[in-house]
Amino acid sequence: MTQLIQARNGVVTPEMVIVAQKEKLDPEVVRQEIAAGRMIIPANKVHLSKGLSPIAIGKMATTKINANLGVSALAGDPDRELEKIRCAVKYGADTIMDLSTGDDLDLLRTRMIDAVSVPVGVVPMYQICEELDDILDMTKQNILDVVEKQAKQGVDYMTIHCALLQRHIPLVDSRLTGIVSRGGSLTAKWMVAHNAENPFYEAFDELCEIMKAYDVSWSLGDGMRPGCLHDASDQAQFAELSVMGELTKRAWEHGTQVMIEGPGHVPVDQIADNMRRQAKECFEAPFYVLGPVVCDVAPGYDHITSAIGATIAAFNGAAMLCYVTPKEHLGLPNLEDVRVGCVSYKIAAHAADIALKRPGARERDDEMARARYAFDWEKQFALALDPERAREYYYQARQDANDEKAQRSDLAQLSPKELPAVPNCARAQALENGDAPNEDFCTMCGPKFCAMRTTADLIRLRKLQEEQPSDGN
Amino acid sequence: MTQLIQARNGVVTPEMVIVAQKEKLDPEVVRQEIAAGRMIIPANKVHLSKGLSPIAIGKMATTKINANLGVSALAGDPDRELEKIRCAVKYGADTIMDLSTGDDLDLLRTRMIDAVSVPVGVVPMYQICEELDDILDMTKQNILDVVEKQAKQGVDYMTIHCALLQRHIPLVDSRLTGIVSRGGSLTAKWMVAHNAENPFYEAFDELCEIMKAYDVSWSLGDGMRPGCLHDASDQAQFAELSVMGELTKRAWEHGTQVMIEGPGHVPVDQIADNMRRQAKECFEAPFYVLGPVVCDVAPGYDHITSAIGATIAAFNGAAMLCYVTPKEHLGLPNLEDVRVGCVSYKIAAHAADIALKRPGARERDDEMARARYAFDWEKQFALALDPERAREYYYQARQDANDEKAQRSDLAQLSPKELPAVPNCARAQALENGDAPNEDFCTMCGPKFCAMRTTADLIRLRKLQEEQPSDGN
Repeated sequence: MTQLIQARNGVVTPEMVIVAQKEKLDPEVVRQEIAAGRMIIPANKVHLSKGLSPIAIGKMATTKINANLGVSALAGDPDRELEKIRCAVKYGADTIMDLSTGDDLDLLRTRMIDAVSVPVGVVPMYQICEELDDILDMTKQNILDVVEKQAKQGVDYMTIHCALLQRHIPLVDSRLTGIVSRGGSLTAKWMVAHNAENPFYEAFDELCEIMKAYDVSWSLGDGMRPGCLHDASDQAQFAELSVMGELTKRAWEHGTQVMIEGPGHVPVDQIADNMRRQAKECFEAPFYVLGPVVCDVAPGYDHITSAIGATIAAFNGAAMLCYVTPKEHLGLPNLEDVRVGCVSYKIAAHAADIALKRPGARERDDEMARARYAFDWEKQFALALDPERAREYYYQARQDANDEKAQRSDLAQLSPKELPAVPNCARAQALENGDAPNEDFCTMCGPKFCAMRTTADLIRLRKLQEEQPSDGN
Repeated sequence: MTQLIQARNGVVTPEMVIVAQKEKLDPEVVRQEIAAGRMIIPANKVHLSKGLSPIAIGKMATTKINANLGVSALAGDPDRELEKIRCAVKYGADTIMDLSTGDDLDLLRTRMIDAVSVPVGVVPMYQICEELDDILDMTKQNILDVVEKQAKQGVDYMTIHCALLQRHIPLVDSRLTGIVSRGGSLTAKWMVAHNAENPFYEAFDELCEIMKAYDVSWSLGDGMRPGCLHDASDQAQFAELSVMGELTKRAWEHGTQVMIEGPGHVPVDQIADNMRRQAKECFEAPFYVLGPVVCDVAPGYDHITSAIGATIAAFNGAAMLCYVTPKEHLGLPNLEDVRVGCVSYKIAAHAADIALKRPGARERDDEMARARYAFDWEKQFALALDPERAREYYYQARQDANDEKAQRSDLAQLSPKELPAVPNCARAQALENGDAPNEDFCTMCGPKFCAMRTTADLIRLRKLQEEQPSDGN
């Protein structure tokens, strides 16, 4: 009995109650959304029994973010990878995808599922490929065996590239970067070599039955996602999307939950149309997009190029955003990259939730505005998406100012011992400058140019004038 | 004779010819756009004589970015600040605003104008304030004197908060963060204390005559820009915008060039409307926006929160984007912050130019896609907006992989001496792994999971099949 089947039967499950609380929605609304396929709760029964905290993915829920992690044959230490996973969850990842390749995949995955209470996704093709000497030897039984094994381990959703068909392959000839999905390209190679249809497509009904038994959710993989702006919104991409729509219906008939994976690299002007098209072709099944990256010339900054695209995508209907780290296109992310990637995507998700006017979405921002106006630095740090980074930069700027003062004979240096211990800039600066301790300002503008302080002054003046009418009145 | 007056007289100036070449536009189109007030060339005659390279700001031109710099009374060393300015120009700043406060403002500004060939902007209020013991002592003559002095120094555009009127001040009572513009708040304080109208508004015609004499462009400052999402698109902001429209017409009557300064902090769903409203109220005078920041809870990451807003703003008509650095809301930016701020904003500007289908905007991106597909790492670095960062991260990922291998007995370590010298990942990896040297892949996926390599394989397979029809056919 999957969440979908129970929702259709009118049953509000305990998991629906939990996500309703998290989303500030009525449990009955959650049930209806799940029954209609517009929302999923990716919650494998095995993972639930191990302490999974269920979440909802769908248009009515807040925007979710996913962090891709995993070791590779060339790099990665399992203990360090678990550290990255904990870091991702700390900085807001709602789900984790294990994209590990190499040996010992089962051990690492089991440790991951035991370690985190967020849903875990996987791409079965990677393990299928690792367990064979040559991917061309892959049989339907290999596919079913690996998917069943991973379902048993407690994987909550699986990305499988079922919708890339033989007739789509010639459509990539006009592309600059061909097929950039790893799973998609390996599947296509198998199809070309055997002159046969996509084996995952052929096994679709049997796969559905495995997914159903554990309530693993589908993430229908987009093997044909564009790998550069030039290739965006092309025939190959949209032909596959149309098959994804067909498979969405078939998966629903089996009672399995479905979300759809999306691009990738898309220019800003095409993102809204991509979202509308997916909703239409796939009957509003939740859309899970990778970025999208909105320009191709910024390696080292693709967490930013893609956070821009992700915000626009979420504002136009995407339900989950797969993070991109600063190392994208260059190498595997380290701990710091994972942190920066997660925070960048929390920004995208949160900005979209505010713009979509989700209940209470802006409350934390308004609190921050009040803390800024009150010069309450500790509260500002506490409200920040990354409190440690905000604090670090605040003190770094103070230290920089001090260093520069040391080089300038015309400025008196701040006492270094006062630097690290001072929680409130306003008080500290006032003390250091010999000003009255009730003066409020920060290092950015200094007391003379602090706009908020000046505003406070002029409000006091206005009040005074109201109480004591001026001579002119 | 300003660019505007000459354009109206049908004269195509040498500066118009230069920007036409830069923008791939017909010089006559540039003249028409300037004559209509939809485009400006901020080029003080003094700075032109010192080697300014003119640029165009307007809807028909590519999106420009500005970097705010300057020392403050509490921090900043002039030599270090000039280093930051050179860094900003290196990473793509089209203009520099000198927001210095403290002593020696004339010396630093003159050095800046001599040092850079990009337009320099300034906020005269800061120097007015520094030259007085109390801003409340400010007279009309102080204003005219400082503006004339700065115009003589060669400043190309000036941000002056002329449009914040007495009747607007009570409108901030419902705000969370009051007036966050430094110039705006000081002006408002003066107005309240003297119960008098904005002295910059009162001196507007005389200011126009000074600007006209040197061809200094107006940047009509938005003293009422919102300082948080809560305050966005409120009465105070739009009341001031309406006065900006009135002043735009008056400035044009004097023959001076005008752009309009805009917000600030704006939720994603309100940005397009803000752009449309400015175009309408200000007769399509170029819009120069600060960010906007799209969420308030990410101090330390406001280059990202604002690059999102800036991209959407530029796509909807903003002509210039004022950068925001990672230190925004926390302190003054250091060299690294300036670099990251500039690259983030080049991304925003470039993504918008691509989306607006400006001629040739995507060429560099397509070149990057080709370089990626060809595994040409040196070319990828060369095409990157920040080549040094891309190279650094590429080798950092390789080093991380090596470090992890050192901790895993099951993986052979790469020879460290090979690491720094290897320009092409594919060749390097192949050599290290003992594979054939013509194998192409990178550290991210390794040879077995490289999608681009797999695509190349399957294309070879398809060609082979076409040449030798299979048995089945």
